[in-house]
Amino acid sequence: MNFDMILAANARLSGKKRITPLLNSPFIDELVGRRTYIKAECLQHSGSFKFRGAFSAISALKSEEQQKGIIAYSSGNHAQGIAMAATMHNIKSTVIMPKDAPKIKIENTRKLGAEVILYDRYTESRERIGEKLQKKFGAALIKPFDDPSVIAGQGTAGLEITEQAKELGIEEADLLVCCGGGGLTSGIALACSEQAKNFKVHPVEPHGYDDVARSLISGKREKNENNSNSLCDAIVTPSPGILTFPILKNYCHSGLVVSEDEVLKAMKIAFERLKIVIEPGGAVALAAALYHSDLLDSKTIVVVASGGNVDPETFAKALSFN
Amino acid sequence: MNFDMILAANARLSGKKRITPLLNSPFIDELVGRRTYIKAECLQHSGSFKFRGAFSAISALKSEEQQKGIIAYSSGNHAQGIAMAATMHNIKSTVIMPKDAPKIKIENTRKLGAEVILYDRYTESRERIGEKLQKKFGAALIKPFDDPSVIAGQGTAGLEITEQAKELGIEEADLLVCCGGGGLTSGIALACSEQAKNFKVHPVEPHGYDDVARSLISGKREKNENNSNSLCDAIVTPSPGILTFPILKNYCHSGLVVSEDEVLKAMKIAFERLKIVIEPGGAVALAAALYHSDLLDSKTIVVVASGGNVDPETFAKALSFN
Repeated sequence: MNFDMILAANARLSGKKRITPLLNSPFIDELVGRRTYIKAECLQHSGSFKFRGAFSAISALKSEEQQKGIIAYSSGNHAQGIAMAATMHNIKSTVIMPKDAPKIKIENTRKLGAEVILYDRYTESRERIGEKLQKKFGAALIKPFDDPSVIAGQGTAGLEITEQAKELGIEEADLLVCCGGGGLTSGIALACSEQAKNFKVHPVEPHGYDDVARSLISGKREKNENNSNSLCDAIVTPSPGILTFPILKNYCHSGLVVSEDEVLKAMKIAFERLKIVIEPGGAVALAAALYHSDLLDSKTIVVVASGGNVDPETFAKALSFN
Repeated sequence: MNFDMILAANARLSGKKRITPLLNSPFIDELVGRRTYIKAECLQHSGSFKFRGAFSAISALKSEEQQKGIIAYSSGNHAQGIAMAATMHNIKSTVIMPKDAPKIKIENTRKLGAEVILYDRYTESRERIGEKLQKKFGAALIKPFDDPSVIAGQGTAGLEITEQAKELGIEEADLLVCCGGGGLTSGIALACSEQAKNFKVHPVEPHGYDDVARSLISGKREKNENNSNSLCDAIVTPSPGILTFPILKNYCHSGLVVSEDEVLKAMKIAFERLKIVIEPGGAVALAAALYHSDLLDSKTIVVVASGGNVDPETFAKALSFN
């Protein structure tokens, strides 16, 4: 896993990914107390950065491998990223989803072109279903974060951020990234390690799911006690990835942790001031900038708003927050 | 008023305006029944395209004129555009707003740097207050749409659309524009008349406020009977502008008209599929694409989402719409 893999992924994604804007608002600058920029990855194809990693991984396969199709398991954004990227390659994708996943996510994944196989998460193993399918079709399994081509794909968001920051004359910044398994954070940190050495990358997680923050302190992969029922479902993972953690450990600064109330307030502020829709898991980094900037010392803060796949009820809840 | 004025405005706005993305979604393509692209001007500085016209007009003034400050009257998006553009020029702006305008809009305009003068719209004339201030300070009055530099500024959105469409290989399209006084629509139509001759520009208005659509049919400036209490407040004007109408007449195709229910549904679809926040007046063009594409014959539809300054209650109403 190295920087050149990000450049290669960037070349494969050229003309396919959306170069998402780096937004700002004088109102947010005032709230945060310094210049703050928001990378709007909620505007990426499929509604989150996951499209980058999915497209990167599929496009890295040889043509004969692609023809055997793609397998993935996910209950959310990775599923939609895989479905869309596979359809753009004119190949088949099969996504294994829990049958109690939100109907809208199952429907979206199907409409984006994937075959969805539902399983009972209490009695069945998605890994075993995946293995069976792999044996039957010889299809490639693309994991949500512990895959070098996926990490490289997510790293292309980091390349864009450093280029956009350079155009704005930003030479040093605290760069806050919403963090689950660490695919996006490690990719961006690796990109910055070459392209923007004065950018300090901080993973951001919700309270109770701060495995990465604790792992960065202890130096080994810590686990979360709880792994369900978080408002920030998109970034709840049991522990940092096997491939992602060494990168996080090498290149990241301290992790930040935010509360659910802070997340809802950040979603409302993004609505009011940036006119973008962010899902809870995609709002943790903005929440950290808004409510914990005392822990940061750069003159400029850059925040990744990683996804926008949120149901209307949850968004309305954020809007009603005072 | 000619195309070169748009090029000149574009040069003045270079590096100042946001080049807003042209978004798309396979879900929206399916609903509309053809390729559909959305120019997300809600992501423009100050939350609407109005920043373009305001900055264009201020930057066109001589330095000694700028130093005397800017006067504008507006209850909404033009106010915020003027305030922000004046602050970026380090000059004073005074905006005359009705004292019953939404508090948040008054507060935003102040926070963006303008002095706000409140008036009673039932007993006072904003024009007279404006004249007094003009005489006192010699400040320039910038009208919301009937001003050549404002029209030229809005036309820069048209330049961007034609360039972005060209990159996507789009050679002909129906281009739907949210239309109030016609500043944005006439600017875009003028840009297309030189840059994209196969783009048919259609103004879009809400039911009951379709003065432009009727004026294009009759050939003269028609009036609306009603001028208040529309969900689409940002684009409700009594009649087409004196400067804008001849341009609309020369370069626009038939106007389209949408219902309030269609507007709310379009806002929800933009939330779900594009992850952007559009205000009612900024959603009429998308609503026309979604529900009236039978009136259009190009293979591709381009829609301008002109603004996103909507209060949380109205947005929540759109989200709860089924």
